[in-house]
Amino acid sequence: MVRLSQVGEFGLIERISRRENKRPETIVGIGDDCAVLKLPTSNIKLQNKSERTKYIYQLITTDTLVENVDFKKKGLSFFHLGRKALAANTSDISAMGGIPTHALVTLGLPKNTDVSAIDELYRGIDSLAKKHKIDIIGGDTTDSAVMFITLVLLGEVEKVNLLLRSTARVGDLICVTGEFGGAAASNFKLPTSKLKTNVKIARKIAKSQTATAMIDSSDGLVRSVMDICRASKVGARLYEDAIPVADGATLDQALYGGEEYELVFTVKKGKMDRLLDGKIKYSVVGEVISPKLGVILIDKRGRIKPIKSGGYEHFKK
Amino acid sequence: MVRLSQVGEFGLIERISRRENKRPETIVGIGDDCAVLKLPTSNIKLQNKSERTKYIYQLITTDTLVENVDFKKKGLSFFHLGRKALAANTSDISAMGGIPTHALVTLGLPKNTDVSAIDELYRGIDSLAKKHKIDIIGGDTTDSAVMFITLVLLGEVEKVNLLLRSTARVGDLICVTGEFGGAAASNFKLPTSKLKTNVKIARKIAKSQTATAMIDSSDGLVRSVMDICRASKVGARLYEDAIPVADGATLDQALYGGEEYELVFTVKKGKMDRLLDGKIKYSVVGEVISPKLGVILIDKRGRIKPIKSGGYEHFKK
Repeated sequence: MVRLSQVGEFGLIERISRRENKRPETIVGIGDDCAVLKLPTSNIKLQNKSERTKYIYQLITTDTLVENVDFKKKGLSFFHLGRKALAANTSDISAMGGIPTHALVTLGLPKNTDVSAIDELYRGIDSLAKKHKIDIIGGDTTDSAVMFITLVLLGEVEKVNLLLRSTARVGDLICVTGEFGGAAASNFKLPTSKLKTNVKIARKIAKSQTATAMIDSSDGLVRSVMDICRASKVGARLYEDAIPVADGATLDQALYGGEEYELVFTVKKGKMDRLLDGKIKYSVVGEVISPKLGVILIDKRGRIKPIKSGGYEHFKK
Repeated sequence: MVRLSQVGEFGLIERISRRENKRPETIVGIGDDCAVLKLPTSNIKLQNKSERTKYIYQLITTDTLVENVDFKKKGLSFFHLGRKALAANTSDISAMGGIPTHALVTLGLPKNTDVSAIDELYRGIDSLAKKHKIDIIGGDTTDSAVMFITLVLLGEVEKVNLLLRSTARVGDLICVTGEFGGAAASNFKLPTSKLKTNVKIARKIAKSQTATAMIDSSDGLVRSVMDICRASKVGARLYEDAIPVADGATLDQALYGGEEYELVFTVKKGKMDRLLDGKIKYSVVGEVISPKLGVILIDKRGRIKPIKSGGYEHFKK
């Protein structure tokens, strides 16, 4: 018998994603920040003749937070939890270049849960939903000895603005928004006011038509770069002294910490000017290299430093 | 402090659903078997001039099964569990008159789960997904002390075939497919071979253009009728001797048992012939009456019998 703790989250996902999608609407299935569906189907004709606006690309993502794994109930702010659940999903929509539109909320709750705590949770969700004009259209509520919250978020993106993980090319520069390590430095207890979303800057990046691939940094900067590399079949060289480290954080926290909703994206070298024209604030942290070289880190003295296995992995002990 | 066990699932849902949807695509939010979105949005024009095929109506539903609430792990067939999760969601799509298209699977799993059990679970899901040409396009996997499976199912329906809970009218006849009480009579241990879906007959009913409202019977026959009545602001009279009771089941099991994926629908009296023409097998079990009269049951001797509070409710002790 093989236990889940032996194969880990990545092993499980690989096992699950070995499947063929057959419907014509399915553009991206398991393996990116969101699934992508091409809508509408055959019986619709176009107002705008341009291929660029031919379809709506619908984005779908889901993220689950479980008690004692992703949060502890002791001293928990339910407002914070609700806001965090929507922020995490919104970040996945952003990372595809899209805007969020509709959400479903599933709650697993112990019978003795205080009803006012659930109201607080919804207030946290609504605080972000209102900002981004997201409708909460459904979900499920069920008994559960362990509390959990599963959020499903739909969004949309024009075909021309869709950004995948799998389309980085050798020679591209690797860029990031914001700073890293702040969440880890605060022992993952960032105040609710720091739970921001990145929809606006993600849209700017997507619309600038300069990026070749994008992902969010929720599992850590290095892990995100590795995910782009795996999906794009490329390698990456990161420069230690180019990493924007948050105040009070160590370089290790910036590289591996996670739980931050920044964007990691790749840009064709010749197109960097346009990013600046778009008034997008970003840092160049490395470049895309041959897959043979893998993902490597260059320290301040120009030496190769080993990469630690990146970020958090579920099921591993 | 008010505990969840005091307000119950229905109280919680009412609390949650007191919200206004604002996006133009949102046709139905919380409160029916599925949410309904009108797609595409503004930048698309039509090939077919008829209003009837003007839009795609996208259906979205989600259902969660939790260990020790909806299933026990001891002696569990993971194949059965996976198939049941997809069957339950498919039934919600059917109940709107639609066809299922894409699914997301979220699993909360203890670390010591046997990986081959997860493979079995997916084989169960796939056994139905293949039949209905459903693509599995995403989901999430996470550690959880208590096992749970959350399935999200997307579907679509032509505007003209969409059937809601809220559109039954006084004078309509109440009809059902199949028989009731079989699941309860087997102590909710129906063999996997009996886990069938009702997509075909639901589509026949929808396309016959005779039904005014529809719902699935997963929470029990009486509860389903009550749900239609609440949403449509009508009452209902059910005739005890018209209820199709499954072999070996009692009348009470047929009325209140649940965990069956049959359809409960209302039909305008003058249109019953067309149902027969469509070769749809159904039983007439009652009629829609004034809301002032509530939901009542008439026994074999013509007397009014009290309705028990219908079906299973989460959180209630």
